[in-house]
This record gives sequence, structure tokens and C-alpha cells, in this order.
Amino acid sequence: MDRTQAADVVTAGFLVIGDEILSGRTKDKNIGYLADYLTLLGIDLSEVRVVPDIHERIVEAVNALRERYDYVFTSGGIGPTHDDITADAIAAAFGVAIDHDPRAVAILESHYPQGQLTPARLRMARIPAGADLIENPVSKAPGFRIGNVHVMAGVPAIMQAMLDAIAPTLRTGRRMLSRTVDADLPESRIAEALREIQKASPGVLIGSYPRTTDGRFTTQVVIRSREEDLLAAAAAAVEHAIAAAAT
Amino acid sequence: MDRTQAADVVTAGFLVIGDEILSGRTKDKNIGYLADYLTLLGIDLSEVRVVPDIHERIVEAVNALRERYDYVFTSGGIGPTHDDITADAIAAAFGVAIDHDPRAVAILESHYPQGQLTPARLRMARIPAGADLIENPVSKAPGFRIGNVHVMAGVPAIMQAMLDAIAPTLRTGRRMLSRTVDADLPESRIAEALREIQKASPGVLIGSYPRTTDGRFTTQVVIRSREEDLLAAAAAAVEHAIAAAAT
Repeated sequence: MDRTQAADVVTAGFLVIGDEILSGRTKDKNIGYLADYLTLLGIDLSEVRVVPDIHERIVEAVNALRERYDYVFTSGGIGPTHDDITADAIAAAFGVAIDHDPRAVAILESHYPQGQLTPARLRMARIPAGADLIENPVSKAPGFRIGNVHVMAGVPAIMQAMLDAIAPTLRTGRRMLSRTVDADLPESRIAEALREIQKASPGVLIGSYPRTTDGRFTTQVVIRSREEDLLAAAAAAVEHAIAAAAT
Repeated sequence: MDRTQAADVVTAGFLVIGDEILSGRTKDKNIGYLADYLTLLGIDLSEVRVVPDIHERIVEAVNALRERYDYVFTSGGIGPTHDDITADAIAAAFGVAIDHDPRAVAILESHYPQGQLTPARLRMARIPAGADLIENPVSKAPGFRIGNVHVMAGVPAIMQAMLDAIAPTLRTGRRMLSRTVDADLPESRIAEALREIQKASPGVLIGSYPRTTDGRFTTQVVIRSREEDLLAAAAAAVEHAIAAAAT
């Protein structure tokens, strides 16, 4: 029996919105950052989807993810231009109205010099009804949270600042602990031993990652568990198996 | 009316399989590479999903993507260890048997010295019934294609080599042409003009990407179309709008 209780596990899905990622023009930096961030918080990132700037595709993906995971995070598509359609799509996904939000308007009014809050900029104050704002210390235009969905900017520096604003509000689970063991062997040499250790180690996840080091095939074995004692026992077994295979 | 015919458009979904991406341990390099590669070929990458090493999740995602797009590409989970479950999941998704494939066994037999083709390594020859092999010039263990799904390794060098092997077999569409115009202005200054140009430009996709350059907010406008004349006209309109906004 896995001793980890389901109540200890908090899950998340991440939706990356933007043609520029799918065309290759922009190389995503947010997936890896969010994955690290949530792992440290004690939230399991369970799925990522990348969809284009198409209303129906955003609606469909956010609805699929929000039903399935404790939290959903999105990045991209909340700026002032015509291709920034995320806020409207989120409102549609939740079946709520969207309009200029007085709190968001006030933030933008205090940020832009008199007369420079153009209609395009004001568009960044369109927030679905019932949403809370997420602070944006970088460029002011806020993100928002509605239900379990957190809507953030795509620009990495802004997304990262918004995550810092969100983090204290999130329920977190028991943190997944992790240990990495390096093996100076190709993974096929330890595959059978790892399979046996995995079978004998409930509550532990053993991952085997092949790499090349100085032209040789080597392996990193990553052992993960929420229980320190289970982790230590499995790691010791892996180290033993690697030593045995190397002789 | 959009002059681009549907017959000219070939779409793809990409499924990245692996706990290590979702935990943040490994930073994905395959999404951006595949996006660039398919764009150059004339195939539209339309969706990406990242799922963990869980059988049901792989089956579900590959079935969702293969029904929806002309091609599906997967990366990850085809090595010799217990956490490499992609081949079995793909067989289950297609409802076909899976066993050691004589062609794949022959490749591994000719690669490994006598007596070193262990059961773990032999596991890499498990291929769903009816699949074609995809050559792996790097470490020999092949990928495979079944139906419209192409199953590749997760290690970037191997995935890239497998893509080169696959590319000549793919049907491609009319290539999406692209032009980038840099604006030394925040995007909110040109947002209204871009919206008008987008509205007046069927067959053209205009994307606006905010950035910071030397501490100033600047913008890259990316104009995309399959028609060179439509692209040129929209790009000229964008350049004109930027020049007007800058004065």
C-alpha cells in the first residue's frame, strides 16, 4: 500500500496559449520554470497543453484541465492587442460576463500618465465577472484568478512575478522528495535491477534517464517519494544495484 | 474569404511523455525544435501535450490527438527500463498486439556484441503489430510509426535524427510564410492599428509580441500567411502604422 494519502497530493495543469510557441518563433521558457516552482511548493504538475490563439481551443482546453486538476495555470494572451483573447476565452469557459473591471482600471489609471490610457491599454482591464486580480509588479496590467484557474502573462519575467503573488494563496501538498544517483553505465545494464526495485518499492517512483557523458552512455536514476524513509531505502537499493552492475 | 485551401494545410499534434519534464528535472528541448522543423516543412503544429509516465494518460492523449490532426509525434518512454511504457501504451491506444519485432530484434542483434543483448535491451524491440520502424542512427533502438502516429525517443539528439528519417515520408502543406517587423514602441501604441489591419487582411495572421529592449518596452510584430502577396501587403500596412505611431 502506498502510504501517501490522496489528501496530501495537490495537482495542477498548465495551459500555454500562443501561436508563437507552436510556430517555433518563441521558445517556451515557462513550462520548465513552472514545473520547478510547483515541485518546490509541493504541487504536482500533472499535464501541460499548448494551444494556439483560437477562442474555441482555449475554452476547450481550460475546461478540460480545470475539471481534472486542483489548479490550472495559464500563460499568454492577456496583453492589449487583437491577438490577446485569453480573458474573453476564460470568461466563456466559465460562462460569465466580461467587462472593464474598476479595480483593474484604477491600477492602469494610476500607472499611465494622464491621457495615455488608450482604448487598447484599457482593454487589459477586461476581467471576467467574479475574478480576483493577480498583481503584476513588472508592467502593472493584472492577471486574474477565477475558480481554480490562474491567468498569467506569457512574458517570463511577468509570469514569474505573478506566480510569486499567487503562491501564498495556494493549497500545497506534501512535497515530493527526490534523490538522483548517477551511474557510469548505459541504462540497459541496470534496467532489470531497477525494475525489481520499483516493484518492491510502493510509494516510490524510480525514473531512469539515459545520457551521454564524454561520449559514453551513462544514466541518471531519479528516485522520488513523499516519504523520506522510503526514499532512502530505495536509493540505497539503487546504489547497491549500480555497484553490482559495475563490477 | 481566405484563399488558403484546407487541402494546403497539414496539421500535427505533439505528445511529450515523461515525468521528468513535469517535475522540472529535465527542461524540454523538443517542443521548440519540432515546432521549427514542422514550420519549415509546411506542417502546422496545432497542439502540444505533456503527460506523465502513466499508461492510461498516454493512451488517452494519443487517441485524442490522432483523431484530431493529420499527424501525431511523440517523444519519450521508448528505452529499456521499467518506466519506458510508451510502446505498450501506443499498442493499447490502437487496440493491437505488441511483441518483439523480428526487424527490430535484428537491428539490436547486429548492434550489440554477442551475448550482450540482455532481456532489458531486447525490450526495446517490442513494437506494436502493423507498425513501421523509424531508423535511429544514434543508438540503434528504433522508433516506429503506426497509423498517423510517429513514436520517437525523448533524448533530443535521437529525436532529431528520427525526425530526419521521417521527414521524407510526410505529406506537407503549403508553407506558412512569415515576416517580422520590429517596432521601437510598446505594443499598446500600435494595438488599434494592428487590429484594423488584421480585420482587413483575411488569409493573414498578425501576432504582436511585447518585449523589453535596453529597458524600453518594444514590440515584434509577426505577420504570417501562405500567400506571398497577402503577406507583403499586410507587412507594408504594419510598417506604415508603426511609422505613423512613432511620429
